[in-house]
Amino acid sequence: MLNFTVGPVMSSESVRKIGGEQTPYFRNNEFSEIMFENEELMKEFVFASDDSRVAFITGSGTAAMEATVMNVFNQSDKVLIVNGGGFGQRFADLCNLHEIPNDEIKLEFGQNITQEILDSYENKGYTGFLVNICETSSCVHYDLDLISKFCKENDIFLVVDAISSFLADPLNMVEQNIDVVITGSQKALACPPGVSIIVLGPNALNRVEKNKCKSMYFDLKDMLKNGERGQTPFTPAVTILLQINQRLKEIKSQGGVESEINRISTLANDFREKIKDLPLEVKCNCLGNAVTGVYCINSKAEDVVNALKIDYKIWVNPNGGEIGNKMFRVGHIGDLTLEDNVKLIEAFKDLEKRGILK
Amino acid sequence: MLNFTVGPVMSSESVRKIGGEQTPYFRNNEFSEIMFENEELMKEFVFASDDSRVAFITGSGTAAMEATVMNVFNQSDKVLIVNGGGFGQRFADLCNLHEIPNDEIKLEFGQNITQEILDSYENKGYTGFLVNICETSSCVHYDLDLISKFCKENDIFLVVDAISSFLADPLNMVEQNIDVVITGSQKALACPPGVSIIVLGPNALNRVEKNKCKSMYFDLKDMLKNGERGQTPFTPAVTILLQINQRLKEIKSQGGVESEINRISTLANDFREKIKDLPLEVKCNCLGNAVTGVYCINSKAEDVVNALKIDYKIWVNPNGGEIGNKMFRVGHIGDLTLEDNVKLIEAFKDLEKRGILK
Repeated sequence: MLNFTVGPVMSSESVRKIGGEQTPYFRNNEFSEIMFENEELMKEFVFASDDSRVAFITGSGTAAMEATVMNVFNQSDKVLIVNGGGFGQRFADLCNLHEIPNDEIKLEFGQNITQEILDSYENKGYTGFLVNICETSSCVHYDLDLISKFCKENDIFLVVDAISSFLADPLNMVEQNIDVVITGSQKALACPPGVSIIVLGPNALNRVEKNKCKSMYFDLKDMLKNGERGQTPFTPAVTILLQINQRLKEIKSQGGVESEINRISTLANDFREKIKDLPLEVKCNCLGNAVTGVYCINSKAEDVVNALKIDYKIWVNPNGGEIGNKMFRVGHIGDLTLEDNVKLIEAFKDLEKRGILK
Repeated sequence: MLNFTVGPVMSSESVRKIGGEQTPYFRNNEFSEIMFENEELMKEFVFASDDSRVAFITGSGTAAMEATVMNVFNQSDKVLIVNGGGFGQRFADLCNLHEIPNDEIKLEFGQNITQEILDSYENKGYTGFLVNICETSSCVHYDLDLISKFCKENDIFLVVDAISSFLADPLNMVEQNIDVVITGSQKALACPPGVSIIVLGPNALNRVEKNKCKSMYFDLKDMLKNGERGQTPFTPAVTILLQINQRLKEIKSQGGVESEINRISTLANDFREKIKDLPLEVKCNCLGNAVTGVYCINSKAEDVVNALKIDYKIWVNPNGGEIGNKMFRVGHIGDLTLEDNVKLIEAFKDLEKRGILK
């Protein structure tokens, strides 16, 4: 199987090797050292300040989104949420559930944020901003510089869900005044799913310290306290944390985060160039590097997705809902190469010959 | 390394093999079928009624404990908690945090529950009962029949945390009137940590349906709804769920839950018999099969634990807190054999010769 979904993605051989080994006992210094290294490398790769901290949650990306909302905001906040798809809606649902006052910037499916839109929210007393920087449902990568500038000018606490974007698109916590970055193990980190990660800058740590979190499992204060000795409050997904360690070191040894972003960007651009001759269309003009939303001009997207899977052993990512008729998604993250792009394009060409792609 | 800790434990070769493979895409029928099978086998192994359901949470055992407390109880309940160690205390903390009225049956470290103790809680209006049937911190296995009878007679909703006990000790949801059973992937299920499991009987499902859960990630209603189509609301730890599937089928093919309990019981009894000639003592007279609490008569427990690890590559489980000076724990769950017991006993004998164990 050749996997072009947006996650879980393909892992390197060395990461998979660890998955095949016995899980070690973890309440010891050996594991703590690995966790310290994970924390340092995560901070390095998001350009966090030295006094930032990292929490590793055994859970899906949504666990980290919920933990963030519960720990950094409270009822005295007024949070602005970019809602242009399923994941923006999730942030809105989380704020409503936890009674965090909020307003939504509702965007059309595939629409980017603009200066004009942001201007209308100036001086309205917002204290927090939530954005899924790569809205994975539509493949839009929102303009982080615009958002960052708006938050800086209005003194707004900025949370960036970079679950699908971390290691695929540039992001700099210090330069872009980002207070929290969220990511997960199964995207460009290319490990199995099961761990989500929250990087907290000094303002975020201050908020966590002052808030009372009404969840034991999501209590970031407790996680950070245990993290001081390289441990977690509860038994974590040890194997995945070891795999994350392997992968972070792999990226470091291959030139670091810039080099990984370049690699993924090359794959994305190559794919987008190569499909130009096919009856497929890229409508969005604000894509990030992690994933491309592909529209079928005359065929049903589901038919293409299914034929790729059954006849060519290639997985691309179907879309949920009505749009799933017309659009599918091709990820560029994980252990993929330019040769893999060639295989996918060859499969498309063959589907065209067979009249399935038209 | 030979691992006698209480978890993560050693996995079979076939389970590890899956850990070494690529994680497949999961929003499809193939994965749903696996999840349906996981649900059926879990129900079979805890002797749940046909109309029971199973929720698989990507998270530690504590995630399942918190989800249970949040979804099956509310402020109109009055819950009785067996608190004889760290995990009983955790249930009490969870109830307090979520404002569930509760009383604790405080037991000494290593003490079992008795009829006399339970008698004093008769007719006091309790609606719920929470017990970690194997209090893994002290190794006590509470008398489930007594608790079950008490709950039946007093019409009390019974939640059994069987995280360390599932597959190691007999448990029958229907016959013992258990409403909820909680377990985790990294104990006798012998998979890597990262998934916890909640089996809910019909009364529990009724309570979940009526309650409003103030967490998106822990909302069992949402999990169970998605589970109807073999899916989870958020990206789960796919690889671990595939490993759980492999392991459940392995147990089934090797004679089912009774046979697995027998196997673990044989290992536990063999170990307990074999240490009788050593300067080690088993004080607790109400052990389950999963783990043995071992007291050092004249040596420091930490010294024994460390020497086993460094000189013999054998892990046993240290205890936290003050008791860690005197006691360590030896697990009998995971991919262990009678030959492994021999290796451990030989190491003890050698430590005795060397004067470290005395």
